[in-house]
Amino acid sequence: MKLRIDQQNLINAVNIVSKAVPSKTSMSILECILIDADTEKIRMIANDMEFGIETSVQGTIEDHGIIAIDAGIFGNIVRKLPAGEVILRSEGEQVEISCGQAVFNILGRDGHDFPYLPEIEKENGIEISQFTLRDVISRTIFSVSTNDTNKMMTGELFEIQDQTLRVVALDGHRISIRTVGLARSYDNRKVIIPGKSLSELCKILSGDMEKKAGIYFTQKHALFSFDDTIVVTRLIEGEYFNIDQMLSTQYSTHVSVNRQEFLSCLDRAILLVKEEDKKPIVLMIKQDTMGIKIRTALGRMDEDIAITNDGEDLNIGFNPRFLLDALRAIDEENIDIYLMNSRAPAFIRNDSTFCYLVLPVNFISV
Amino acid sequence: MKLRIDQQNLINAVNIVSKAVPSKTSMSILECILIDADTEKIRMIANDMEFGIETSVQGTIEDHGIIAIDAGIFGNIVRKLPAGEVILRSEGEQVEISCGQAVFNILGRDGHDFPYLPEIEKENGIEISQFTLRDVISRTIFSVSTNDTNKMMTGELFEIQDQTLRVVALDGHRISIRTVGLARSYDNRKVIIPGKSLSELCKILSGDMEKKAGIYFTQKHALFSFDDTIVVTRLIEGEYFNIDQMLSTQYSTHVSVNRQEFLSCLDRAILLVKEEDKKPIVLMIKQDTMGIKIRTALGRMDEDIAITNDGEDLNIGFNPRFLLDALRAIDEENIDIYLMNSRAPAFIRNDSTFCYLVLPVNFISV
Repeated sequence: MKLRIDQQNLINAVNIVSKAVPSKTSMSILECILIDADTEKIRMIANDMEFGIETSVQGTIEDHGIIAIDAGIFGNIVRKLPAGEVILRSEGEQVEISCGQAVFNILGRDGHDFPYLPEIEKENGIEISQFTLRDVISRTIFSVSTNDTNKMMTGELFEIQDQTLRVVALDGHRISIRTVGLARSYDNRKVIIPGKSLSELCKILSGDMEKKAGIYFTQKHALFSFDDTIVVTRLIEGEYFNIDQMLSTQYSTHVSVNRQEFLSCLDRAILLVKEEDKKPIVLMIKQDTMGIKIRTALGRMDEDIAITNDGEDLNIGFNPRFLLDALRAIDEENIDIYLMNSRAPAFIRNDSTFCYLVLPVNFISV
Repeated sequence: MKLRIDQQNLINAVNIVSKAVPSKTSMSILECILIDADTEKIRMIANDMEFGIETSVQGTIEDHGIIAIDAGIFGNIVRKLPAGEVILRSEGEQVEISCGQAVFNILGRDGHDFPYLPEIEKENGIEISQFTLRDVISRTIFSVSTNDTNKMMTGELFEIQDQTLRVVALDGHRISIRTVGLARSYDNRKVIIPGKSLSELCKILSGDMEKKAGIYFTQKHALFSFDDTIVVTRLIEGEYFNIDQMLSTQYSTHVSVNRQEFLSCLDRAILLVKEEDKKPIVLMIKQDTMGIKIRTALGRMDEDIAITNDGEDLNIGFNPRFLLDALRAIDEENIDIYLMNSRAPAFIRNDSTFCYLVLPVNFISV
């Protein structure tokens, strides 16, 4: 194999596919990036068996071939090469990477041992801007469970209904929901996509409104296609939780509050909470102020912030981190919080695009 | 005690003194910052018993007093307070920190248990700009030994001779020397200052040429005085190595090379060197090129760079990290390297301000 690729294009491609290289694996070939120049295209592939990334790189193929190279070493080398045209040559498992006066020789592995991504037809896909896709994922993904006990909670629900996409993440203590409109109506579909695949996908999606991504589904896989890249992920099988049953629009207390002010206050409060600590923050909601109190082994904090409440007074306790996560996922200057009583969830929501549900926790009156 | 201090002043002072709070200590009081408002000044002090920092903070003393507060918690709190005037109040060991609507209550400790810094007279000091002091330390400190076996090597020699200050660090494999002129002549003096104290000092010195620092010595301590801050450190006792005996101006090979080009090449080469690996880089010096070669378990790299050599050809091996450290400590566009043979040290030096000596290592011919 002999290829000529501009260094910057090579770096970009390596950065993209590296997101699918597992940090720990018992199959050492998966620590490699596959460079496949067997056809008329230079393709780079990484695959952690749950999800994989393939991207095509601009360059010249002088000799066809295929080789797998350790992703860590290869990435380090291409990033440190002088700017210019990189010549990538392989002969058996010997790989030569040269650019300008610098010549590296390292050992690759037989590319035929590398597992290709499953073939997925690009049919009946939905189209969405890369910006929007990244946005809905990043504003919900923090709510997936990192604990494997309930597999379903480690994924996000992607629910397509007519002209909307609803993305849902929940971990048993909170639910995060984002809804976006689609350009046209699609067939209804519900799939559960592993959270880990979505986090990595987010890192390589562009923040450009104008750039599109296509999403395609089979029974077992989802495929995201954008720019010169495809990301294929397995789906989590099974029936997702019945979300609508958990949502309620009833409330007896309705707080409007400046988001940044509430956020800064919570940010201060968690200074007193150690990692393993489960001390609640107590909100003492009155008509035009909300008292915020926390007591931990380190000390206590008390603060009052201005609000408007067009419902009843209420004292309620929360895990402050869950409130913080939700507030950070919102851009609005003012937010509305709907509450029922001290044992019912709080809803931070607007009319149509987001809903963050946080379950309260018990607290000893302070 | 009751104090009023602007939040930004308080943050600055905490950031400064925190550099002397030990990360590990068996004396838990040392994890605190002492706030001493017993006199007409608000002083903040931290002390790890080897070195200590004291700074005075602008503010109003409404009630005199003294209290020690855990540095970590106190720092976190003051950094997250809203901007404005912070009121710091203590009653026994209870501390209240309030700003705007936010009120923290934490437990402090009796300030009288806190060890004050040793009293040092500011007499017969030398004066130097903070910029220069920071500069000579940061361009040599990487050569102190991090290994405690030879205590002397963990410090830097500060040698004052007439109108110059020479700063020397060595670890048995290399020597780094910086020399600066002083504004006037001083009494000759040689002291060894712990490397750790100097690293922390560097972090709080200003990069301003116009701002001065005073340096004062006693038999056992050095004191650095600048802005509203003093840093006191113990000295390492004993006689430092005879440096001048190790330096030589003889050479048979003299290489001039573009520093950045050489540095980039070494930077690439160490990609193939794992942390624990001791593989040398081999320089093959000819008249107008220098071949740079490295062979490790990961692969090999070969590169040629343009040089001028007005001496003999030479093949010589080095630990690439030591060359890198020296090159990074120099600003000059071109550097001169003086060599004798493959068993004698290389000198990277200019006429008067710096000298970096690196010992060669054996290599198997490549």
